[in-house]
Amino acid sequence: MHIGSIEQDGDRRVVVRESDDVGVVLPAEYTDVESVLLSPAERWREAAATAMHEGPRIALADAAWLPPVHRPGKVLCVALNNSANPDRILSGPDTPAMFVKPSSSLIGHARPIRLRAEFGRVHPEPELAVVIGRGGTDIAAEDALSHVFGYTIINDLTSPTMRGEDTFHYRAIHPDPTADDGIRYVESWVSYPARYKGTDTFGPIGPWVVTSDDIRDPHSLRITCSHDGRLVTDDNTANLRFSVAEVVSFASSYLTLEAGDVIAMGTALKRSAAGGAVQNVDLTALGGVVEVAIEGIGTLSNPVQRR
Amino acid sequence: MHIGSIEQDGDRRVVVRESDDVGVVLPAEYTDVESVLLSPAERWREAAATAMHEGPRIALADAAWLPPVHRPGKVLCVALNNSANPDRILSGPDTPAMFVKPSSSLIGHARPIRLRAEFGRVHPEPELAVVIGRGGTDIAAEDALSHVFGYTIINDLTSPTMRGEDTFHYRAIHPDPTADDGIRYVESWVSYPARYKGTDTFGPIGPWVVTSDDIRDPHSLRITCSHDGRLVTDDNTANLRFSVAEVVSFASSYLTLEAGDVIAMGTALKRSAAGGAVQNVDLTALGGVVEVAIEGIGTLSNPVQRR
Repeated sequence: MHIGSIEQDGDRRVVVRESDDVGVVLPAEYTDVESVLLSPAERWREAAATAMHEGPRIALADAAWLPPVHRPGKVLCVALNNSANPDRILSGPDTPAMFVKPSSSLIGHARPIRLRAEFGRVHPEPELAVVIGRGGTDIAAEDALSHVFGYTIINDLTSPTMRGEDTFHYRAIHPDPTADDGIRYVESWVSYPARYKGTDTFGPIGPWVVTSDDIRDPHSLRITCSHDGRLVTDDNTANLRFSVAEVVSFASSYLTLEAGDVIAMGTALKRSAAGGAVQNVDLTALGGVVEVAIEGIGTLSNPVQRR
Repeated sequence: MHIGSIEQDGDRRVVVRESDDVGVVLPAEYTDVESVLLSPAERWREAAATAMHEGPRIALADAAWLPPVHRPGKVLCVALNNSANPDRILSGPDTPAMFVKPSSSLIGHARPIRLRAEFGRVHPEPELAVVIGRGGTDIAAEDALSHVFGYTIINDLTSPTMRGEDTFHYRAIHPDPTADDGIRYVESWVSYPARYKGTDTFGPIGPWVVTSDDIRDPHSLRITCSHDGRLVTDDNTANLRFSVAEVVSFASSYLTLEAGDVIAMGTALKRSAAGGAVQNVDLTALGGVVEVAIEGIGTLSNPVQRR
C-alpha cells in the first residue's frame, strides 16, 4: 500500500493511492503516516479498505503534500554508504557513520526548496529511506526488517560550501597520564552538519511511504535523480554498502529507535550515461526542478526557489 | 520560576519549585515544560499561583525527573563556543557551528548514564541550554531574547573514541568545469556526530528550566562540573564566544526555531584549581557520579552505570 500525508482545508490528513492520479482520503483520526503506524494494523487496514470502497477521492496532482511523518523523533542519515565510495575513502569506519537531520528541515513532495546565495553550492542526494514501525534497542539484524513499517524517498540536500565552513582544524585535548597536566594536544579535524544538512527545506521527503509487504527486496530498486529532466544519477539500492537490516541493527545498539523514526540509507551515486555527478548540480546557481525516483515507491519532485 | 518535568504514577506531570526540598505539582493538563510554554503565560502563571496556594506537594529528593521538554523538535548544540577555544583552533568558522542531538538521547536529572566498554572514552561537557518559547525564522539579534522561554542545564556527553571512529579522511568530489568529467577530487576530513553525541543517555538535562524573567543576565553565571565530588571545571557563561542572542539569531536564519526547541550553548572548559580537564574524566573507566551546576538554575547530577 502507498500511504502519504497531505494538507486539506488546513488539516493534516492521510491519503492512500488508488491509481497514479487518484488518492483516497482516510478518516480524520489519521493525521499523518505516524498516526497510521501507531494504530493496530488490522484497524488502519480496515479503515483503508472502507475508504477505498466509499471514501472521498482527490486528484493527486492537486494535493498539498506534507512529509509522510509530520515530526519524526529523529531522521537518522547514513553517510558514505554506497559501494562506489570505498575508492574515495582513505580512512574511515567499518560500521555505518550517521548524523541527525532536524525535522524542521523536512518538506513534502512538490513544495519548493528555498535557497539563498549565502548557502553557497547546494546539491541533491537521492536516497532510499526507511520508516520505523516498531521501535527498539539492540535489535538483532535478523529481526530488523520486522521493525520497518515501510520505505520512502528522501532528497538529502547538502551544501558542501557550508560543510567546508563548519569544519574545524584544531588541537583536540586527549588525556595523557605522562604529562604534567594530564593532557596532550592532537591535531584533528571535526565538522558539524546542522547547517549544511539541516537548513530549512534541505529535506524533501515522500510523497509515498510504501508498506514493507509491498517491497519484496529493498536492495534491488532502481534509483534515479534528474535535474530539469536531465538524468544525473542512475543507480540501484543493490549498491548500498550496509543493508537496511545492518543499519537498523547497528543504529539501535547506540540510539533507541522509535516508531516514526526515519533512516536515510545514504546517497545513490552512480552517474547516468548522460554523465556528470550530483555534485555538479549546484541548485543555488541553477534553480530548476530536482526529481528523485525509486522503483516501486514513486517520484519525489521539488522546484527550487531563491529565498 | 523554576519549572521541571517528572513522572508520577505513570503520568508525565509538571512541578514548580517551592523550596530547595519541596515542589508543587501543576494540574494534569500540563504534561511537560513544552505544554507550559505553549499555553498563554497568564494562564499557566495563574495555574502555578493556585498550585502554590493549594496544590499537592512532593519531596524533590524522591522525584522521578524527566527531561523538561519531553520530545523537543530539535536539540541544537553549538560546538567550540568558549573563549578559551581560539588558541586551539588552527582554522574554523567565524559563526556558530552546530550539530543536532536526537531527543532519544535525553535523560532527566538523577537518571543513570549507561555506558558500554565499546563506547571507548566518554567525558562530560557542562553547558548552559536555552529553551525556545516562541519559534521563528530570521530572528534579529535584538529580538532574540524575547524568543527564549528559559534556561536549563545540559551535560553534552561526548565519546572522543566514537568521534575518531566516525571521521573519514576521503577525497571529496568538487565540480571542476575545466576537467573532462566536470569534477575533481579534494582531500578532506568529515566527521559524523550521531553516535558520539547522540547515543542513549548522552543527554542528561534539567532538572529545572528557569524562566527568563528570573535570569537577569545569562552571561554572568558560574558553571561548574564535578566528578565524584571533585571539581573539574569552574567557568562562567561570560566566557561564551557567541552570546545567546547571537546564536538564536544566527541559527534561525538557517533552521526555523520551534517552541520547545533546546539550544545547548557549548562547553564550559576552564579547569578548576583542582586541575584536570573534562577530557580526563573518562566515565566509561571511572563510573561514579557527574554533576553540572549553574548559578541561579540548579544542579544536574547523574550516576554512571555500565550497560
